[in-house]
Amino acid sequence: MTIKAVVFDAYGTLYDVQSVASVTDQAFPGYGELITQIWRMKQLEYTWLRSLMGRYQDFWEITQESLIYTIDCLGLKHDDKIFERIMDKYYHLELYSDAKQALTSLGDYKLAILSNGSPAMLTALVRNTGLESILDATISVDAKKIFKPSAQAYELIEATLGVPPENVLFVSSNAFDACGAKSFGLKVAWIERVSALALAQELKNHEVIRPLTLFKALRMQMEPFGLQPDYQIQSLFDLPKLVPKMG
Amino acid sequence: MTIKAVVFDAYGTLYDVQSVASVTDQAFPGYGELITQIWRMKQLEYTWLRSLMGRYQDFWEITQESLIYTIDCLGLKHDDKIFERIMDKYYHLELYSDAKQALTSLGDYKLAILSNGSPAMLTALVRNTGLESILDATISVDAKKIFKPSAQAYELIEATLGVPPENVLFVSSNAFDACGAKSFGLKVAWIERVSALALAQELKNHEVIRPLTLFKALRMQMEPFGLQPDYQIQSLFDLPKLVPKMG
Repeated sequence: MTIKAVVFDAYGTLYDVQSVASVTDQAFPGYGELITQIWRMKQLEYTWLRSLMGRYQDFWEITQESLIYTIDCLGLKHDDKIFERIMDKYYHLELYSDAKQALTSLGDYKLAILSNGSPAMLTALVRNTGLESILDATISVDAKKIFKPSAQAYELIEATLGVPPENVLFVSSNAFDACGAKSFGLKVAWIERVSALALAQELKNHEVIRPLTLFKALRMQMEPFGLQPDYQIQSLFDLPKLVPKMG
Repeated sequence: MTIKAVVFDAYGTLYDVQSVASVTDQAFPGYGELITQIWRMKQLEYTWLRSLMGRYQDFWEITQESLIYTIDCLGLKHDDKIFERIMDKYYHLELYSDAKQALTSLGDYKLAILSNGSPAMLTALVRNTGLESILDATISVDAKKIFKPSAQAYELIEATLGVPPENVLFVSSNAFDACGAKSFGLKVAWIERVSALALAQELKNHEVIRPLTLFKALRMQMEPFGLQPDYQIQSLFDLPKLVPKMG
């Protein structure tokens, strides 16, 4: 089956959501990484819950709600200025170090992002990181008012690029997203940004369970849904090798 | 508005899902409570993810998948016998100490359970805890092949009891469930089984974040969806006072 388009998840795949940790740690010393982990967990929960209730709010709203929950649940206090400074970081997330070069080397294929992010968030992010000229499209689930892993989200790829599911390689580090894409019928490469095995080992190597390691471990394994990705990669640099093989 | 039926969530509301901790701790010494917390978290995630993907599996299957994930992500090993012994506990969860008496004192109302649990799980649970003769119905979302907080789950109350949403008081300890019920149009009492404030305080009182406290805190606050429950109670014993007031 010929691959004609390579489509990327944004948060956690091209962009490092953990890069908010420095700003959250400035705002709440000692809590930066923990806030980042909980925030991400609740952010995803809220995309699923709002989708299921049929009460969609865009990803900016979701990201705010989940930050509020996180700060409250840790018993911390914040003022509006701190809150805005943290939220602003979502427009300036850092690209993973392999992202730009890997994308550039895939220039023969249609390239796009399919993300939960709102159009405003994604536009800013892509512009701020210089991906504008590399990508053919930046697709937001906002057009369907429902989040991944709903099939309606993945339908947007064909609607936008004109490439049918079987000719699309979808790349995500998020296990639930890889499953959703596979369930929908895309070819899927799951990028293991952190080794699940290494995390499990790290957990076992310490007398006391470390919350941060644990939170990472909770998100880094493939979900056992019987929806195995076609490829499991460790870096986006593995993609160019992969794609011709599939062509 | 007259309340004619009081409908209860099962897991975490009438039944203590934490009561699996003793059997998980027997199987994995020192890990009992942690497994219990992670298991519950992944169990809920999987209900949402499978619902959104349109790949429903019943709650028994979901509970197995989430237990597998939990054991794997902690780097633990299990055999089938241990696995089955832990799973079996889901048929024998303990009632919260206030459940039976509170239900009995509400005898003038139609009483039911609306739960994610599979029919087989709920039937066994209700029978094993002597609630059979007290309840008018035990409703499983399985009839709709989608989990809470989908509106389709809450529709089953009227379909089964013949009582319209505005005449139903729905009781849940699960914040997402209270939100889903409220979103659907039921009257909602949210029972705070553990104080969110106390948990936040406990977190702040310790130099090192305790994973167990943290996991509880992650689930014990109301979600900031703008779907506030009508009532917030600390015990099911508060219900009899509440219901006549609403009559």
